Amino acid sequence: MIFLTRHEHFNAAHKLYNPGWSEEKNIEVFGKCANANWHGHNYNLIVTIKGEVNEDTGFLMDAKKLSAILSEHVCEKIDHKNLNLDVDFMFGKLASTENLALAIWEQILPHLPYNVKLHCVKLYETPSICVEYFGN
Amino acid sequence: MIFLTRHEHFNAAHKLYNPGWSEEKNIEVFGKCANANWHGHNYNLIVTIKGEVNEDTGFLMDAKKLSAILSEHVCEKIDHKNLNLDVDFMFGKLASTENLALAIWEQILPHLPYNVKLHCVKLYETPSICVEYFGN
Amino acid sequence: MIFLTRHEHFNAAHKLYNPGWSEEKNIEVFGKCANANWHGHNYNLIVTIKGEVNEDTGFLMDAKKLSAILSEHVCEKIDHKNLNLDVDFMFGKLASTENLALAIWEQILPHLPYNVKLHCVKLYETPSICVEYFGN
Amino acid sequence: MIFLTRHEHFNAAHKLYNPGWSEEKNIEVFGKCANANWHGHNYNLIVTIKGEVNEDTGFLMDAKKLSAILSEHVCEKIDHKNLNLDVDFMFGKLASTENLALAIWEQILPHLPYNVKLHCVKLYETPSICVEYFGN
Amino acid sequence: MIFLTRHEHFNAAHKLYNPGWSEEKNIEVFGKCANANWHGHNYNLIVTIKGEVNEDTGFLMDAKKLSAILSEHVCEKIDHKNLNLDVDFMFGKLASTENLALAIWEQILPHLPYNVKLHCVKLYETPSICVEYFGN
Amino acid sequence: MIFLTRHEHFNAAHKLYNPGWSEEKNIEVFGKCANANWHGHNYNLIVTIKGEVNEDTGFLMDAKKLSAILSEHVCEKIDHKNLNLDVDFMFGKLASTENLALAIWEQILPHLPYNVKLHCVKLYETPSICVEYFGN
Repeated sequence: MIFLTRHEHFNAAHKLYNPGWSEEKNIEVFGKCANANWHGHNYNLIVTIKGEVNEDTGFLMDAKKLSAILSEHVCEKIDHKNLNLDVDFMFGKLASTENLALAIWEQILPHLPYNVKLHCVKLYETPSICVEYFGN
Repeated sequence: MIFLTRHEHFNAAHKLYNPGWSEEKNIEVFGKCANANWHGHNYNLIVTIKGEVNEDTGFLMDAKKLSAILSEHVCEKIDHKNLNLDVDFMFGKLASTENLALAIWEQILPHLPYNVKLHCVKLYETPSICVEYFGN
Repeated sequence: MIFLTRHEHFNAAHKLYNPGWSEEKNIEVFGKCANANWHGHNYNLIVTIKGEVNEDTGFLMDAKKLSAILSEHVCEKIDHKNLNLDVDFMFGKLASTENLALAIWEQILPHLPYNVKLHCVKLYETPSICVEYFGN
Repeated sequence: MIFLTRHEHFNAAHKLYNPGWSEEKNIEVFGKCANANWHGHNYNLIVTIKGEVNEDTGFLMDAKKLSAILSEHVCEKIDHKNLNLDVDFMFGKLASTENLALAIWEQILPHLPYNVKLHCVKLYETPSICVEYFGN
Repeated sequence: MIFLTRHEHFNAAHKLYNPGWSEEKNIEVFGKCANANWHGHNYNLIVTIKGEVNEDTGFLMDAKKLSAILSEHVCEKIDHKNLNLDVDFMFGKLASTENLALAIWEQILPHLPYNVKLHCVKLYETPSICVEYFGN
Repeated sequence: MIFLTRHEHFNAAHKLYNPGWSEEKNIEVFGKCANANWHGHNYNLIVTIKGEVNEDTGFLMDAKKLSAILSEHVCEKIDHKNLNLDVDFMFGKLASTENLALAIWEQILPHLPYNVKLHCVKLYETPSICVEYFGN
């Protein structure tokens, strides 16, 4: 069993806002992250897969193919977008880093080849804050 | 003459959009940076001042005081904000990294002590793109 | 189960010195790290907690609150200090990165909210050396 | 149980090439990584060991001694070398990051002191691609 | 006058070797950098241009267009290549970082738009060594 | 004219303290940097030289030789030391980053070969604060 990790990045706007709460409650809980006119981040996405090394290629999986899957199913849908308004797989969800990491896991999972397993989605919102999800 | 540099960072939303142009022209010129619902970045701000070392302190300037000036006059006005909508010193300007660096220079300049000179405002929009302004 | 990580940093002086040993033995074992007049580091502290995402906030825990706990119970007690002389929770301990990581774990543990678990304390002494502790 | 990690780096040339395949098949599978005249990388090697802290030293292991083992048994054999042609422990293997991480694990394992266990060999080929191996 | 910088990267093999010298002299001068079977690096290329901000776009130059020029005239010719054998604009030159930076300057210069000036080519061979060229 | 830069690092303890002032005045001016029992940093030293490329080597100067000069005349005298107590070329000087950069310039200058000029000493005290000195 070996683990392969690929780093990608995207830039997006968002705000943290619970529509079931008043404006005051949102500001109390989320502070400046609830700014009505949005703010944004350069997100770093770090995805790890695991499995056996293929003897013919020396690869668990071609890192370029992993990158292509991440680009098609995550980055192209999310880069230079508004996470609250523009991204179908985030509709109806609070645009926290936690929820975004969980949603990215679901986006990637169906598109990996049969011989690899998704191990971890790690998502940096800023260089000081990141979230990791390893599945259930 | 010695140079002292301080790094700060802020997160903001923006879009690149010339209101004198059609939607089509904006998308043609700015591509996904013109996304109507905004996108955003973790900006890194790197400010350099210059002058003589004070013999009593060994400092050109206390880096904490430089940081406090940058926080008060730049970061607090811009962090977790929308550069096009929320920031008074960007009103009426295209929210490019170039224009933002120029505007930050003007924000900082009046607040430095008399014995130091502002040398450079360097602004990273992403880890791959930065702008520097050294004044006229 | 999701994991949230927060990065903090502090600067401190220390030396590696076993008071039960002779000066010669200390220098033999610890080399220049035993320098009588101390040396120091910019430490990077990376703390990971785990638990379930709160549906109302989308958070495992507000990263700012985690940061506040780390500041109050670790960084404010240790930043710009001497690990051997100034830090109560290191008294009587060898000021190694290993022991410091263990002590930081104990400092943080009682202050986390009931719904999150401390997962890992990771401590970089230099960009090339780090220690991780995951509890017993 | 505590974990200690040491970062090392080396520069090497390689190509990805399966000698049992035609030139066309190699280029089809490995793309520009199969370039006949080689290409190269600044590899970052990150090795983690685990065990108990020694009470007399506060160390799991002296990080300088870990570094010396990595230098002698890995970096000196591989730095400024061609992974396909010059490195005895890679002979007959495809010079992928996966295979290199596995081979480095085998190189390190016999040389660690009895009281520590090798936990992970992590190898960055570029800042965007890394492999981890935790043993069988 | 404002300065815009774009970071790119490429991976290449090379050796330092003066064909007018004996093998012994090459090894004496270049040490392990003269390894007959090559070694390689992840190079970081950092190019700075200067000029006036365009009022309609807020840009000195679209950073994506600068990136496209760097890709077409530098990175595509050099990435995953052997600097001594595969790169036409390095033929007959010692493949040092200094010479490569100078050659990259010449590659870029004819392709910039009339309203910007090339200011600096900065080239990192490793994270600890870089070269800068500002033209004559 | 080409510029070559080499990165080095060292770890040291220091405090900011003007012996001509009272304890109170020192704390008022230097804050926690005046902590009586010292604190410390991982300093990054970045030295740039300039001159002409040698045609036979393709080098301005062998970066390893530059590194050896920096090690012998700076890092070995300062690494794992107390800047106020242990370093001869800092005796009688306030141990600020500014003064340290100036003193390092003087340490390096006499040891460079005749054909290169010292261009810049850049010194990071933390990842957020650096000083540059370009000589008189």
